[in-house]
Amino acid sequence: MLRLSPVPHYGYDGGVSTAPVRVAVLGSTGSIGRQALDVIQKLPERFTVVALAAGRNAPLLARQIAACRPLYAWAEADAPELRDAMASCGARWLGMDEMGLAPEVDVLLVGTAGAVGLQPTLAALNAGRPVAIANKEVLVMAGHLVRRAMLAGGGDLRPVDSEHSAIWQCLWGEERHEVRRILLTASGGAFRDLDLAALAAVTPEQALNHPTWKMGAKITVDSASLMNKGMETIEATWLFDVPMEKVEVVLHRESIVHSLVEFSDGSVKAQLGVPDMRLPIQCALAYPERMPVPPAPPLDLAAVGALHFGTPDVERFPCLRLAIESGRRGDTFPAVMAAADEVAVERFLAREIGFLDIAAVIEATLEKHEPLADADLEGVLAADTWARQVAARAAAGVAG
Amino acid sequence: MLRLSPVPHYGYDGGVSTAPVRVAVLGSTGSIGRQALDVIQKLPERFTVVALAAGRNAPLLARQIAACRPLYAWAEADAPELRDAMASCGARWLGMDEMGLAPEVDVLLVGTAGAVGLQPTLAALNAGRPVAIANKEVLVMAGHLVRRAMLAGGGDLRPVDSEHSAIWQCLWGEERHEVRRILLTASGGAFRDLDLAALAAVTPEQALNHPTWKMGAKITVDSASLMNKGMETIEATWLFDVPMEKVEVVLHRESIVHSLVEFSDGSVKAQLGVPDMRLPIQCALAYPERMPVPPAPPLDLAAVGALHFGTPDVERFPCLRLAIESGRRGDTFPAVMAAADEVAVERFLAREIGFLDIAAVIEATLEKHEPLADADLEGVLAADTWARQVAARAAAGVAG
Repeated sequence: MLRLSPVPHYGYDGGVSTAPVRVAVLGSTGSIGRQALDVIQKLPERFTVVALAAGRNAPLLARQIAACRPLYAWAEADAPELRDAMASCGARWLGMDEMGLAPEVDVLLVGTAGAVGLQPTLAALNAGRPVAIANKEVLVMAGHLVRRAMLAGGGDLRPVDSEHSAIWQCLWGEERHEVRRILLTASGGAFRDLDLAALAAVTPEQALNHPTWKMGAKITVDSASLMNKGMETIEATWLFDVPMEKVEVVLHRESIVHSLVEFSDGSVKAQLGVPDMRLPIQCALAYPERMPVPPAPPLDLAAVGALHFGTPDVERFPCLRLAIESGRRGDTFPAVMAAADEVAVERFLAREIGFLDIAAVIEATLEKHEPLADADLEGVLAADTWARQVAARAAAGVAG
Repeated sequence: MLRLSPVPHYGYDGGVSTAPVRVAVLGSTGSIGRQALDVIQKLPERFTVVALAAGRNAPLLARQIAACRPLYAWAEADAPELRDAMASCGARWLGMDEMGLAPEVDVLLVGTAGAVGLQPTLAALNAGRPVAIANKEVLVMAGHLVRRAMLAGGGDLRPVDSEHSAIWQCLWGEERHEVRRILLTASGGAFRDLDLAALAAVTPEQALNHPTWKMGAKITVDSASLMNKGMETIEATWLFDVPMEKVEVVLHRESIVHSLVEFSDGSVKAQLGVPDMRLPIQCALAYPERMPVPPAPPLDLAAVGALHFGTPDVERFPCLRLAIESGRRGDTFPAVMAAADEVAVERFLAREIGFLDIAAVIEATLEKHEPLADADLEGVLAADTWARQVAARAAAGVAG
């Protein structure tokens, strides 16, 4: 009987913590990283940056180091301006895999895209550190390894994606065995109203123009193809320990309802907000508290007026079907799907293949795959490498 | 740090209880009572009825006694069929005020309308017993006494109203000091689209035709005038220990989103479901568990298609304004408002006054009231009696 009544208090009642939460930000120059720094800098008494890591945008990383004065920093490529910025604040060089282990880090934010986030995530979780995860590929490729690391280390995994953050918040105070369905909302992407013929002809420029969210190129194309939503269904199974059969996608063009959970008694909970990644980022960093100020404009439901819902069309968006099928088949299928998608999207952005060819490349790769059950990290990375090669050949075949 | 992460479990994790929950149902022949018995009878391994109390519908109560075989029963008026039914199952006569105190009762469901539910509620809460409350007047009239009894006895108060149940569910696992706003949804009632001239001319038959919910006559008229929603704002302040300033009303004609809570960080949670009172009833009786089966058809959001939201018009619905003002003024104003409303609605249903005169009668009564601060039960009941007399005169003046 631990689920407390709302009176005299609702549940968790640990009061307000006093020391600021010390955050390590991986991928600080990307979309998630930049918004995380915005959240952190607006609440200097509650958050502080202790580590920054980024890829190739050395000028921006140097400015972030100068502004945040972290203890640790890392970049994919060395650069004089980085050395200068680090020297001026005394920051030390520390590899991404070690950042979650530093004693000064309270939470590791994994805001990198792609497989590069996997090792730091596993290392931090194995050490019992909380990880706020915005990286899709980590969970899609190696959800079973992430989950195992989390259970082994006792650390917790906090979703940063707006959809998974919504589900997470809806599950606070609830029990896993009382979850009937997880309903992931999908805006439908940039091409939700196009027919198959029009979809075949879309350009990278069109695909990069997302109706609601401003994000990186890869994820914006994945949003347009609904591959992003498909990956999110797989992520949800690992984050919330539910089978694929319990995860459904519902179209919701306004992106106000970020996702819903249906419970065993038929009650449905939803989390809503303006579409702004700073809210789920802040939520993940502040957990188990909620910060006293909104990082984004508050929601005015009466001004929004109407919220629409519908069923996604897997005929027009085969990537959604492929992702769900991969998730159901499990083993290394999701890793292969994610790798093939990365290759196919690259080729699409390079104008070598068409938009609908993305799904064709993925499907051709999946068909050739011989899955590896309960793969270790090496096995997952081998499946990833294999898939990239096969997908590249499939893409070349389409392009040729 | 008690607000647990979703993995390995979400929060409350007490497992499934084995013994059925023993329920006492006050007002068993009314709308809430009948639906509660439906919920209970569909899950005989999880719920059992141990006490039934009702008003004047002796034939139905006798049939309920025969079907449920409770240990205790009570009725406003004695009747031979009741005696026969009780004798056949060995049920004993027990007053409503004692029902919540019987050792065989796990939870008291207060499904009566009006002031009659007050004493049994206070008695059960003072004894530390959980009370599932569907009675509006109890909280509107004497919310401060109910809250005090709950804190004194350590019992908990579980809302049964669909709106308050929604808020309650949204608050599980949350903290009171992190609640920014409570957003009560209102269907807008039967007359949501009528202008003032049309509202002045509506008949009792029209007022009793609620677009969504099937309920008793008084509450259906209160729904049409938005007085019901106004009372719910006052109830929310007592149930969730928030000031009136934090409670807002948002129009939502589909009655699918049953209410919402906005938190300090701007995140909004909502509870949704088909409009069916059996869900909140089951939720209140099953707490802290959720039952494994839905008592009502599940929600199909894609089939619903669209959810609409708007701002209520207090010009056309002055009862909403009067209720909110009464709640803000506090003391005995809400009790006086509720009593005056009861009188005015009676007169409206008897065709003695018009629909808009309901608000006029309440306002005239409130204007004459000299409030009593921190009234005890006697003081509240005296204010109630005073208000009925003043309202009756005001209504006679309008009718004359």
